[in-house]
Amino acid sequence: MSEFPRNIKSLINAFTRLPGVGPRTAARFVFYLITRPNEELSALAQNIAQLKNDVTTCNTCGNFSEKNPCPICNDPKRDQKTVCIVSRPQDLEAIEKTREYNGLYHILGGTINPLQGIGPSQLRIQELETRLKNNPPAEIILALNPDMEGETTVLYLTKLLKPYNLKITRLARGLPVGGELEYADEITISSALKGRREV
Amino acid sequence: MSEFPRNIKSLINAFTRLPGVGPRTAARFVFYLITRPNEELSALAQNIAQLKNDVTTCNTCGNFSEKNPCPICNDPKRDQKTVCIVSRPQDLEAIEKTREYNGLYHILGGTINPLQGIGPSQLRIQELETRLKNNPPAEIILALNPDMEGETTVLYLTKLLKPYNLKITRLARGLPVGGELEYADEITISSALKGRREV
Repeated sequence: MSEFPRNIKSLINAFTRLPGVGPRTAARFVFYLITRPNEELSALAQNIAQLKNDVTTCNTCGNFSEKNPCPICNDPKRDQKTVCIVSRPQDLEAIEKTREYNGLYHILGGTINPLQGIGPSQLRIQELETRLKNNPPAEIILALNPDMEGETTVLYLTKLLKPYNLKITRLARGLPVGGELEYADEITISSALKGRREV
Repeated sequence: MSEFPRNIKSLINAFTRLPGVGPRTAARFVFYLITRPNEELSALAQNIAQLKNDVTTCNTCGNFSEKNPCPICNDPKRDQKTVCIVSRPQDLEAIEKTREYNGLYHILGGTINPLQGIGPSQLRIQELETRLKNNPPAEIILALNPDMEGETTVLYLTKLLKPYNLKITRLARGLPVGGELEYADEITISSALKGRREV
């Protein structure tokens, strides 16, 4: 990037640290931003600088929030006896969007991934156990991604939670809406068969 | 995104304005940034706020630069008689990286795209003509993307430049390194055939 001015080069570099962003995408971002008015750049800069102001972590569920406990944990209308375990705040958001779930959440902050050096102690599992001891729910829903890391974490948690003697469920596996049987993998189809329902 | 704190929501929103970034990618960026130390966020913010400081546009080639004219246009060791026309600064960068080109550049600032309302008057074509009149080169290389918009722009420029009576060339079309004949489209193969070289 020898030909670009210093400010452009350093911002391209900074953007390549974002997840999934390589040098070309970073350059596209910068060349887009450079066409924007200074006020817009200042607003974006301020937003980034102040990102963590007024943002705290809910001690109970681990979600980012302006208050601790967060609005969900603090909502008496929510079912306090059901806790849905998710990996990241975005997953909580995805479930909230369905408007079908009225229980509480627990954010792990990731999934077990030995290759990346993420073991149980890097996740909010200690906090989960404290929570179960202080305020035991009736059901735990494991809502983790149906991939290798998610499955490993499900196995680990199932073992860990067994002594608590509560109902442990996991999200159904099957064909996604709009999916095609022809192109689905064997594990998905066999899960869909096992989980078949009467119509 | 009802559940996220205000600062997070507004930054997710701001990031969705970047080219090719949807709400999910924007959320991933924000949740990555929120894990970073405040100093890193401040540095990134400052970098964005100051992006356009010390950045000007070279009046000759149209590239972003700290000086006007830019280091390339101002370099007496470069071949002043060859001008390579590119769409964007990133394309200039890609050609510079080959270290095979020693001429000058002219950045159009895009390609003709009637669907997006980009016609010749939105591009730096007026500037190109002024340049040709004041300092006529011997050769113009059209280095535009081999897509619909690039082809349209090549056609337009070829017509426009004809009266100047100079050599007009374009980048060769053919199989890219690592490409497979079997999967190449007919136009690429027929271009590769026409442009075949003796070995």
